[in-house]
Amino acid sequence: MSLSEFELISKISRLFKKLPDIDVGIGDDTAVVTLGSEKLLLTCDALVENSHFLLSWKSLVDDLFFYLGRKLVSVSVSDIASMGGAPLFSLITLGVNSSFSEPDLDKLYNGIRSALSDYGLSLVGGDTVRSENLFFDLFLTGKAKSGFMLRNSARPGELVFVTGTFGDAKAGLEQLLNGEITDSYLVNRFLNPTARLREGQRALSLGVKCGTDVSDGLVFNLYTISEASGVRIDVDLSLIPISENLINYCGKERALSFALFGGEDYELIITAPEDKEGELRKIGFKQIGKVSEGSGVYGNGKLLPKKGYDHLKGDDS
Amino acid sequence: MSLSEFELISKISRLFKKLPDIDVGIGDDTAVVTLGSEKLLLTCDALVENSHFLLSWKSLVDDLFFYLGRKLVSVSVSDIASMGGAPLFSLITLGVNSSFSEPDLDKLYNGIRSALSDYGLSLVGGDTVRSENLFFDLFLTGKAKSGFMLRNSARPGELVFVTGTFGDAKAGLEQLLNGEITDSYLVNRFLNPTARLREGQRALSLGVKCGTDVSDGLVFNLYTISEASGVRIDVDLSLIPISENLINYCGKERALSFALFGGEDYELIITAPEDKEGELRKIGFKQIGKVSEGSGVYGNGKLLPKKGYDHLKGDDS
Repeated sequence: MSLSEFELISKISRLFKKLPDIDVGIGDDTAVVTLGSEKLLLTCDALVENSHFLLSWKSLVDDLFFYLGRKLVSVSVSDIASMGGAPLFSLITLGVNSSFSEPDLDKLYNGIRSALSDYGLSLVGGDTVRSENLFFDLFLTGKAKSGFMLRNSARPGELVFVTGTFGDAKAGLEQLLNGEITDSYLVNRFLNPTARLREGQRALSLGVKCGTDVSDGLVFNLYTISEASGVRIDVDLSLIPISENLINYCGKERALSFALFGGEDYELIITAPEDKEGELRKIGFKQIGKVSEGSGVYGNGKLLPKKGYDHLKGDDS
Repeated sequence: MSLSEFELISKISRLFKKLPDIDVGIGDDTAVVTLGSEKLLLTCDALVENSHFLLSWKSLVDDLFFYLGRKLVSVSVSDIASMGGAPLFSLITLGVNSSFSEPDLDKLYNGIRSALSDYGLSLVGGDTVRSENLFFDLFLTGKAKSGFMLRNSARPGELVFVTGTFGDAKAGLEQLLNGEITDSYLVNRFLNPTARLREGQRALSLGVKCGTDVSDGLVFNLYTISEASGVRIDVDLSLIPISENLINYCGKERALSFALFGGEDYELIITAPEDKEGELRKIGFKQIGKVSEGSGVYGNGKLLPKKGYDHLKGDDS
């Protein structure tokens, strides 16, 4: 179709107007709705054959479906984590076909179960359908304890903080696409990301108001904060956390490019006042930049392109 | 894969043990969970290209995607209706590819929007992904006002009641598969089913404890009640509601077979004590049989086969 994923989301947002009992509608990481005295978070994420994974990877990764099961859960939990919420209940739609074997189903479910257990949430139902390409779609509900972090709450004068390292997942994906694994740490970062659930909840409890997770690439997701909040973000490129493995894999220059524009890191970006830096550092956040009046995302003073990460292609979308 | 959809659901149920905050887990029409003082209903349903619909139907039905949008919403709402609940919030995952045109997207969304409006519920978010075959997956949350109807609550001595007529959808599907529409009423019953939301809520408010909806076929879904409740169900075949259109389309004998074993009717089955018959009749329910001790589903005294409806194939699954 002629619309990109981002144009499509934007179009969908326009088609469906925001309704009164919806606190946060289409466009943020999760929807927030009011149910009685509770705020409910709702999100969903899908993994689709030939878009998010290839069956041929089974020859490289024995337990491919175990990791896909884990990843399916982690990427949705990451949405909840980016708001500072706690995940509660999940449903799964499985689109399967005759080439999907029972051992692969067992691996998928063991992966899902192990991730559900890691994050303390339960699977309560779902649907199974026949589909020519495999797809796994997870629907997740969560709870906001006391408010939540949003993309639109960055304020001039705040600093920008992130968890973890960036670019590893793209290097992992590259190896899978090349058909040869030279650094399994990086492949694991792609196939088995960790949702930063505790970090998000702790940031929220420290009073942090603005957060998102990095699924589309660090710069791209900085833009989502910059645009939603109406602010300029300046990043000090020397402060962007990059793993030794990534530098060893592809050298410093490419590693920086992967870190800026590679996607599927599932790390968190938050913005917070300077006086929170000490506490945020203790819970795993590192400062990489600052928020000011204006617009755009800059690296060492130069405007960075808003390049979207296009899953298996890894290029603009 | 070697497992049928029903074996798969059963396997998934065994893999994921029931957890304490889950009132009703995998296996009933929707999951019921406790959130604070509220009971939350959770369900999902997907429509998949070549499993639930064919693109070639566009040459027969101009607004195919409008109806698929409506159907996507109605089939999930039907799950909530079968418990007597009220739908609240929905999320949609769209799996689309380059052959999906913007006019078709508009039709799909207009259909979704019109059905959301009919049932009084809102779309609050979703995910869009690239997929070789189109799929649309709807997640729906709902609320149980005061308890809910379940499959396992039929009691000996009760009568069996249903809404609407049976078999129409299968006759509609047959026409689409044959490539020629001779009765558009029947096709509409397949592409544009109505979830019996008000009927389910009213039955619940009358104190009805047992209900399900007919997605897999009348007899098959009577079996789900019979097995979950540990009871025998006897149906008087002459009482099964069948439309004039269906009889005109295929004659009385075939019409009865369609009504018993065709799927996707999305009508409700409930069981209730005899003294409720008058009130239930007023809200659109008709009696077709009775519940007694024992097991199995019988038609005019003969054991009926538990045949599952296999969407596009319309045969055993």
